[in-house]
Amino acid sequence: MPYITLNSAEPGIRGLLRYRPETGRPLSELAEVLLRGPSTLTRGERELIAAYVSALNDCRYCSASHSACAAAQMPGGMVLVEQVRSGAGSAPVSVKLKTLLAIAAAVQQSGLNVTAELVAQARAADATDLEIHDTVLIAAVFCMFNRYVDGLATIAPEDPSLYAAGAQRLIKDGYLPPSGDPSRQD
Amino acid sequence: MPYITLNSAEPGIRGLLRYRPETGRPLSELAEVLLRGPSTLTRGERELIAAYVSALNDCRYCSASHSACAAAQMPGGMVLVEQVRSGAGSAPVSVKLKTLLAIAAAVQQSGLNVTAELVAQARAADATDLEIHDTVLIAAVFCMFNRYVDGLATIAPEDPSLYAAGAQRLIKDGYLPPSGDPSRQD
Repeated sequence: MPYITLNSAEPGIRGLLRYRPETGRPLSELAEVLLRGPSTLTRGERELIAAYVSALNDCRYCSASHSACAAAQMPGGMVLVEQVRSGAGSAPVSVKLKTLLAIAAAVQQSGLNVTAELVAQARAADATDLEIHDTVLIAAVFCMFNRYVDGLATIAPEDPSLYAAGAQRLIKDGYLPPSGDPSRQD
Repeated sequence: MPYITLNSAEPGIRGLLRYRPETGRPLSELAEVLLRGPSTLTRGERELIAAYVSALNDCRYCSASHSACAAAQMPGGMVLVEQVRSGAGSAPVSVKLKTLLAIAAAVQQSGLNVTAELVAQARAADATDLEIHDTVLIAAVFCMFNRYVDGLATIAPEDPSLYAAGAQRLIKDGYLPPSGDPSRQD
């Protein structure tokens, strides 16, 4: 049960975006650009970084939601996502993605934990400056979303099929609220 | 020296907002709404929450910048800001602000650290749902900004007068880039 009285029964971040559309809109735009905008990282890879950081932060809603989004957009599906979540270093992903996940794990602890060595490893695996930038920002953004969602004790449903259905809606429609209803967010 | 090659010599978050304006714009809008938009918390109180969380995260650029913004907009100035940073519980601020700072400190650790008791204490000190919401979100947002700024090793000048001058610009012009130059940010 959320700590504050929301204006809908929507779970997780969705209820918060609807409660405060003034902040909901830039938060939705940020998610849309970072996770779905033009990038040399695939949408699946970016969702995987989001899911991994959310799992490290023990945020049940965000980790279930973005794991479902990653699973639906990565070859390997949920088996791969679970392998990454239980140890990114030994998961069957590209060397480049492995080095980016290592940067994301450092960011989850503190920005100060990102070392020149971690960045050099990513660069040696052909990561570009923009890919390194976006990895740091995705990890930082989910350190925000996770704290926002759990700090207000929002509802996180148990049923995995709800997250799978939500992922299909997000893949189809994206993170922006439909125009004409600034408070709606799927 | 930043880990990636930026397109300006601007320090801290400013260089990052200019480097990637697609994410810079929603990030700037979020800061503007949360720290300067209509609210029953004063701009000084909101900047103080931002400065406090940034200090807890050891983020030199953000803590210096938002301490200067808080000091310029709170009775008590920098002396008060430093009292809060060295122990919010015993600083001479209102009981309500003290309870909100306690919530912010919990968020800095993890969203899961915000307890029903912390929220009840804020409510007993007459904090509204929206004030509790905005406190959690400001604290979460600075857990993001701090990680973004330090995770890419951006430059943090030493000279306090630079932060004081930056605070005056922010108080006058706000966090949004001037229209016509989507990459500019003060």
